[in-house]
Amino acid sequence: MISERLEKQMQFLVEVEKLKAVYRQNMVVDQSRHENTAEHSWHLALMAVILADEAVDPGVDLPTVIEMLLIHDIVEIDAGDTFLYDADGYQDKEQRENRAAERLFGLLPEDQKDRCIRLWREFDARETPSALFAAAIDNMQPVINHYASRGTGIRNHALKRKQVIEKKEFIRDASPALWEYTLETIERSAALGFYSAE
Amino acid sequence: MISERLEKQMQFLVEVEKLKAVYRQNMVVDQSRHENTAEHSWHLALMAVILADEAVDPGVDLPTVIEMLLIHDIVEIDAGDTFLYDADGYQDKEQRENRAAERLFGLLPEDQKDRCIRLWREFDARETPSALFAAAIDNMQPVINHYASRGTGIRNHALKRKQVIEKKEFIRDASPALWEYTLETIERSAALGFYSAE
Repeated sequence: MISERLEKQMQFLVEVEKLKAVYRQNMVVDQSRHENTAEHSWHLALMAVILADEAVDPGVDLPTVIEMLLIHDIVEIDAGDTFLYDADGYQDKEQRENRAAERLFGLLPEDQKDRCIRLWREFDARETPSALFAAAIDNMQPVINHYASRGTGIRNHALKRKQVIEKKEFIRDASPALWEYTLETIERSAALGFYSAE
Repeated sequence: MISERLEKQMQFLVEVEKLKAVYRQNMVVDQSRHENTAEHSWHLALMAVILADEAVDPGVDLPTVIEMLLIHDIVEIDAGDTFLYDADGYQDKEQRENRAAERLFGLLPEDQKDRCIRLWREFDARETPSALFAAAIDNMQPVINHYASRGTGIRNHALKRKQVIEKKEFIRDASPALWEYTLETIERSAALGFYSAE
């Protein structure tokens, strides 16, 4: 007899397969196609494991960071990926994502729904050490990807170097070392024309 | 000044981008393309988080399970994905994967290389509670995927129902509940002709 709890968990786990078909602006490194949000989430979770010792705040809890990164973009199944530099898209982002969280995490048993929504909101608010570090990783990865994929996914967006720095410099608060690496990568990309020089 | 340690970590993290371009037999759920190993790994790690309470052995350590699942297939970047039912491919799988592990995890600082190789071997041996549970999740997911993607990726392999059950029934040792769910899904797929009835 399969329990109702397991039925619900599996319904959720089958539904989230769809994250593999949500595509982002970035390209995969062989430039053959856009990156999807599922593989992006894998990359972030792995980055957190490897870079955990760069976090400055001893309050960072790695299992929490990883759980946040695994679930933080699931709402994109319904709400789509909003490009970080798309001001219009950001106007109704919160509303779209709240509805998506209710539907998607709502497939889970009540206690797990509550936990996922709580972690997702904590991630978004960037106020706890774990959330700040998770957000730093999430914001570092696209910069690394732009450089590694030679700007293919973002060249036509005419991003300005300064604009990228503004969005990303909070990384310093989570880890000065990761910010230094990120900033250096931004400068390299700008020098190669992947971002405009301003 | 970026430390040598961080340089190595980032070299590894850029190199593993390539896992997004290693394709498996399975299809993504909208059947538009084959599933890649990076998004597969994300799905497994998330399954472990959600299904952790189904593990029977109290010795299962969830953070270890997740770390194993995030790294367990990285060797496929060099060694390729060996289809579970490909007996020929399995003949030199170990040798290919050992070389791959040396090169890929060898990009990391020594302590992290050692940890990754140890976890990867532990996963493969299925002898500890955490490794057994991680392997159960890794073996359950394709069965769920075959059914959800209506057998598109595996129909032409003429897999036998019995053959699938043989490879998967160790899942019972990790979790009778997950095995019951997996077996029921195998039977449903067989009834629809995704596996042959034998």
